[in-house]
Amino acid sequence: MIDLCTLGTGGSIPLHTRALASLYVRVQGRAFLLDCGEGTQMEIGRLGWGFLRIEALVLTHYHADHCSGVPGFLLALAKAGKTEPFAIYGPPGLRRVIEGLRVIAPQLPYALELHELPFGEAAFEVCGLQASSFALDHGMPCLGYRFDLARPPKFDPEKAQGLGIPMALWGKLQQGETVELPDGRAVAPEAVMGPPRKGLSFLYATDTRPVPAIARMGEGTDLMFLEGMYGEEEKLPLAVHNHHMIFRESAALAAQAGTKRLILTHFSTSLEEPEAFVDNARAVFPETVCATDGMVTQIHYEGR
Amino acid sequence: MIDLCTLGTGGSIPLHTRALASLYVRVQGRAFLLDCGEGTQMEIGRLGWGFLRIEALVLTHYHADHCSGVPGFLLALAKAGKTEPFAIYGPPGLRRVIEGLRVIAPQLPYALELHELPFGEAAFEVCGLQASSFALDHGMPCLGYRFDLARPPKFDPEKAQGLGIPMALWGKLQQGETVELPDGRAVAPEAVMGPPRKGLSFLYATDTRPVPAIARMGEGTDLMFLEGMYGEEEKLPLAVHNHHMIFRESAALAAQAGTKRLILTHFSTSLEEPEAFVDNARAVFPETVCATDGMVTQIHYEGR
Repeated sequence: MIDLCTLGTGGSIPLHTRALASLYVRVQGRAFLLDCGEGTQMEIGRLGWGFLRIEALVLTHYHADHCSGVPGFLLALAKAGKTEPFAIYGPPGLRRVIEGLRVIAPQLPYALELHELPFGEAAFEVCGLQASSFALDHGMPCLGYRFDLARPPKFDPEKAQGLGIPMALWGKLQQGETVELPDGRAVAPEAVMGPPRKGLSFLYATDTRPVPAIARMGEGTDLMFLEGMYGEEEKLPLAVHNHHMIFRESAALAAQAGTKRLILTHFSTSLEEPEAFVDNARAVFPETVCATDGMVTQIHYEGR
Repeated sequence: MIDLCTLGTGGSIPLHTRALASLYVRVQGRAFLLDCGEGTQMEIGRLGWGFLRIEALVLTHYHADHCSGVPGFLLALAKAGKTEPFAIYGPPGLRRVIEGLRVIAPQLPYALELHELPFGEAAFEVCGLQASSFALDHGMPCLGYRFDLARPPKFDPEKAQGLGIPMALWGKLQQGETVELPDGRAVAPEAVMGPPRKGLSFLYATDTRPVPAIARMGEGTDLMFLEGMYGEEEKLPLAVHNHHMIFRESAALAAQAGTKRLILTHFSTSLEEPEAFVDNARAVFPETVCATDGMVTQIHYEGR
């Protein structure tokens, strides 16, 4: 299972009822953040999932609404007792931005590991998830991300019996160890595993015009987070001008990708009630919801 | 009248119910901020006094809890339509800090005027108030400020009659103009004004150990804002170690200054209910209250 919380759902300038962009991702006891707008540290406090387990921050780009909370968050991590290294990923410019912002957070009791990603496709691992970045179209280097959690295949007792493996050795095989049978044969875990099982995956792409990569990278995902900058159809020219999307465009990408669910987030200051326009998205992709600050959602494995 | 709102009353790390240090000062239709911790732009939105009238930001020092809201606030000013120059005052290091933070707010539609103050006494004017800075003891350059609003003397009709000034000319004198009488004499406004009248003043000093300058600069003020980092008496050694004050120490400075009222603000994360310790301050200075986020207070002229 992966727990996801949209800590802040505002884009550009926050409302006093809506914090700026940040997504808390919790998976198998570990956690990372996607973006860190102003107010993120307060929202983490409100959520109660804690600071110490957060191992990494993945930034989409360097507009202030996505990273203005970084110095405060880094200090909150320190206050929480962090001593392990902390990783930050982001597009080109990462080092310059973090160095600039650290003018007010110069001393930290843990090491910062900065991973500057290319403005394009790249792969890395975060909290046991396979992360894949891809370029968006925002008038500045902005990255979208897909995250995949592999699901180990299931132990197949029939295969084990068929190979004549004593039950006393099943536990080791289930834990991924190769075992030696009484007759001297070595059996690797793969030999007793069932077919591959579908893992979990989600995609996060905000601050962009529609690009084919979003639909392509979204294929087979359980969930896509896409921007809901403007709900109104008539704001399309404004969306084009500001390198953003209207609800319908995000929904069309979700439909094209064939994902299971779409969550719209990153709402314009002018969009006081995103819910009022959600039907513009649902007409194209029915499984759409508008995020709210602090909203928690999960993605689960299918079947056993 | 001066309106004052403690936008955020937290020190160090915010609680999710308590934003970081910032004071909104509104005087005669103009306004400035004292400090600008993370969340300040949201708190201004909540307060509803607006962005556009804010002409200046006065910073005490460069710990993140006092300036982490600067980039977001500068962008919110831009979004509000600011085109007039905006002034920022602060102790040595101002230029370096603002340049660092502006890595995520590089383009603003208004000019920033940076006024780096010495770490010591200095005088400047902000929104028609006379500002006086003084050095605090925080282990880094940190300034306290006193602000004075002069009150013009009152027009004295008896003096005007005594000088034989026709009533038709009184209006001009009241507006500060020199007038020429029918007999050729020139009369300056000062000649028809009453005695000097007491203006309004307040002091703001947080993040410091007690220093004599606080009591001295607080003499004759209507109100002092001092830090309430720790309420508990037994936290004195911690306060000494962290260059902060306990409630009782702030109250003693207010008593020594002979101010009218003391507002404690800038509470430690560990101090969840400042009110529980306010008697430690009131035992020394009865007119003490603990600030809350969004609390508004006023200082008024005495008499007519």
